Amino acid sequence: MITLKVEGMTCMGCVRSVEKAVGRADPGARVEIDLPSGKVAIDSATPRETFVAAIEDAGYDVAA
Amino acid sequence: MITLKVEGMTCMGCVRSVEKAVGRADPGARVEIDLPSGKVAIDSATPRETFVAAIEDAGYDVAA
Repeated sequence: MITLKVEGMTCMGCVRSVEKAVGRADPGARVEIDLPSGKVAIDSATPRETFVAAIEDAGYDVAA
Repeated sequence: MITLKVEGMTCMGCVRSVEKAVGRADPGARVEIDLPSGKVAIDSATPRETFVAAIEDAGYDVAA
């Protein structure tokens, strides 16, 4: 399980956008996002850095 | 000038995400987005459908 702390998500549109970015990085990934905390949990064998790059490419910052 | 009506943008995080999607479709595109109306104006020679696909891929609907 990959856990990221994403900054800049402020509404459900942002959440959907991050979900889509994760899906571009790995179409088979399972993802759960908690908007208030910015916590993104991803179940995937794809490297963490691939998801970090995809989420940053979507316009959000990954803090951890 | 390409003008799109994008649905589902509800905050500035969404706006930034759509801007990034436009930038993926054409890194040289100039884009202006009006959040309240959902109007996205793009100055680019890249085909309209390329931007529509990129924005939909980011999780937003293009109505027109």
